[in-house]
Amino acid sequence: MKKIKYQNVKGTQDNIGKSAVIRRNVKRTIEETCEDYGCQPFETPILNYTELMASKYAGGAEILEEMYTLTDRGERDLALRYDLTIPFSKVIAMNPTIRMPFKRYEIGKVFRDGPIKTGRNREFIQADVDITGIKTQAAEAELMMLAADVFEKLKLDIMIQYNNRKLLGGVLEGFGVPEDMVATVVLSLDKVKKIGIVNVVKELMEKGVSTETVSLIEKLLINPDAMSLAYFQSEKVLKNEQTNEGIAELEELQEYLATLGINDQCEFNPFLARGLEIYTGTIYEVFLKDSSILSSSIGSGGRYDNAIGGLIGSGQRFPTVGISFGVDVVCTALDKMISSEDMKALVDVYIIPLGTEKEAMKLAQKLRKDDLKVEVEFGRKKVGKAMDRANKEGIRYVVVLGEDEVKMNKYIMKDMHTGNGVEVQYSF
Amino acid sequence: MKKIKYQNVKGTQDNIGKSAVIRRNVKRTIEETCEDYGCQPFETPILNYTELMASKYAGGAEILEEMYTLTDRGERDLALRYDLTIPFSKVIAMNPTIRMPFKRYEIGKVFRDGPIKTGRNREFIQADVDITGIKTQAAEAELMMLAADVFEKLKLDIMIQYNNRKLLGGVLEGFGVPEDMVATVVLSLDKVKKIGIVNVVKELMEKGVSTETVSLIEKLLINPDAMSLAYFQSEKVLKNEQTNEGIAELEELQEYLATLGINDQCEFNPFLARGLEIYTGTIYEVFLKDSSILSSSIGSGGRYDNAIGGLIGSGQRFPTVGISFGVDVVCTALDKMISSEDMKALVDVYIIPLGTEKEAMKLAQKLRKDDLKVEVEFGRKKVGKAMDRANKEGIRYVVVLGEDEVKMNKYIMKDMHTGNGVEVQYSF
Repeated sequence: MKKIKYQNVKGTQDNIGKSAVIRRNVKRTIEETCEDYGCQPFETPILNYTELMASKYAGGAEILEEMYTLTDRGERDLALRYDLTIPFSKVIAMNPTIRMPFKRYEIGKVFRDGPIKTGRNREFIQADVDITGIKTQAAEAELMMLAADVFEKLKLDIMIQYNNRKLLGGVLEGFGVPEDMVATVVLSLDKVKKIGIVNVVKELMEKGVSTETVSLIEKLLINPDAMSLAYFQSEKVLKNEQTNEGIAELEELQEYLATLGINDQCEFNPFLARGLEIYTGTIYEVFLKDSSILSSSIGSGGRYDNAIGGLIGSGQRFPTVGISFGVDVVCTALDKMISSEDMKALVDVYIIPLGTEKEAMKLAQKLRKDDLKVEVEFGRKKVGKAMDRANKEGIRYVVVLGEDEVKMNKYIMKDMHTGNGVEVQYSF
Repeated sequence: MKKIKYQNVKGTQDNIGKSAVIRRNVKRTIEETCEDYGCQPFETPILNYTELMASKYAGGAEILEEMYTLTDRGERDLALRYDLTIPFSKVIAMNPTIRMPFKRYEIGKVFRDGPIKTGRNREFIQADVDITGIKTQAAEAELMMLAADVFEKLKLDIMIQYNNRKLLGGVLEGFGVPEDMVATVVLSLDKVKKIGIVNVVKELMEKGVSTETVSLIEKLLINPDAMSLAYFQSEKVLKNEQTNEGIAELEELQEYLATLGINDQCEFNPFLARGLEIYTGTIYEVFLKDSSILSSSIGSGGRYDNAIGGLIGSGQRFPTVGISFGVDVVCTALDKMISSEDMKALVDVYIIPLGTEKEAMKLAQKLRKDDLKVEVEFGRKKVGKAMDRANKEGIRYVVVLGEDEVKMNKYIMKDMHTGNGVEVQYSF
């Protein structure tokens, strides 16, 4: 008999046991927090026209190489979505009468045929929240607050780094970076934390940025004062239209963060750039405070006012701010932090029937109506072994149901934490 | 400017607004009910090796034609999963030491490039519950009870039709159907409700079943007594090993259903066959009582004891029972039944700031900590328009937040149902 390939495809994985429970909890937490914020549930297809996914208002050349493509029986050129932003933009484009501001969340699978690392698969889950129709920094503040809420509920200490593309672009313009090179310079700057100042400078030289400009950038990078917005507000920085707009938006954002009392979880970083080209204003990235658990970001986003209009082809602006949580990477961090013993038991009551399977199921049905999670042991385990299992999994209540209990119409609900039992009447 | 294709691919759809809320509720109801039954969350990849999906222990030839296939950058032959049963079987195969009985649920996207009809897309959501490791009918009874629970919570009146493959197979064997034709005869019988007895008889003749055998099948089809298990238990039916096993299992199942008090939602149907060949014992299919809303089944499943062992190639038996809910088709039914007005409002409290956006967000943050769903109006709507929206969407509480309220450190929480307002102190 030929054994078939029943292993998983590279870059995909099964989640069972502890990891599945963590994933369920993370998804549920994001879902409920989004609903607390009045964001609507929203579901878009995984299968899309390749042409849509390859739009220039989408993920950019690097992501396109990682796109899974296929042809259906109707000879359509299709691609699996690699993010949830384009599907969202498409829906707004297809529903021009949608009531604004529009707030939605979507949690779903995305696919990228790229390099694999810890917490990064080829098939993974993203959770996106987007707000369309708000021009002020209220939208950014709301999403940053939402992120703070999500991670507080998940008991993860985070730091949200933020910046503004206009400020960064304006400063680089002031340094003499030609307009068509701003994007590539930004990409290099974005790596400063990862590769260090020396290597960034080297990379900029290699990219053909002038020595004078590189020197100005280097001076900024090594200046500790530059980590505060006050530096850019001061006379030390040459202003232009872009820097002024960026500073004004950052000031407005900081006022919101102060009012909301989440300043201690937020940090201005003038070199934060975010890879994608679509961003037009505020950008942010969420990190764990303890980078020894995980150094890569667990969420990120920003304002992208031109993408939807570009997709529609109308030139109309749709002010939009989004945040995307990397569910897989968050779960990887939690998986490291939570031991199996710390996991809450999946069931509240465990019924062990001794030849009383039918009555046990009837009792289970009754207890479930009382909102308890109940499992009946159908494996014909001996009482001792079943008790061992209850202890091992931290199940709180156990009922051993023999024929006597059924005959007498009562049973004992044993509390495994205290060791005490309570007699309960029940008509079997 | 070239307009790109921003429409949806045929057979896929966006779910926004009412339909998205219904889908969220259906998924959540299934999820919570499964957890009440002690089923574990479980997540498998959409991308699989084509070889796995095409296994003979899988969906059969018809489904294989509808499989989406693709090749990744590593030249692997991949397919999108078309059900959740094979991925489940694969996990059991890959984890031979998993503790039995094992109960899991998975809710996820599956893909079939086939014909489209109402409630039937090419990309759709299935919710599967499977129990491995239980030989008795307790597993079937538990899943039928679980189905009854799910649909009771969703306020859908259902009827679960059930049968046993051994009974059906044994009866056909007794009628002289050759072993290699049983499967195809079963497929024809399965259509009796849809195409009627005359057409089933015609189809059987065309398939080359002998006149004598067809005549026996026809007699059974037109016999009203045959709709009761008593008929098959009686001397009127010639017994063989298969019919005896089938009858014994059905008797055991009926005892469970009676004890659990769900007999009035369950109906024996000796002609129920289920398309797939993998089933080995009990089979069932869930229908709405009111077929005018939807006549196709909204859930189905049964016992498939040989599939996992076949997949492993060990010949070992893994007694397994499953049920699969068609989330899309359930949502289609609910969408017809629930008007937009009947939908519960998505938010509890709607704050309308009058130049007080920051303080409004701070108040929202506080109310959300009290477990309320809160939306702040950022659209700079006039109070009248905002009130209209609150009324239209059935939002219960509205707070209009002007500068006076902020200055006085209090606000009025207006109950839109009663028209009354309560003054609340709050330090802005």
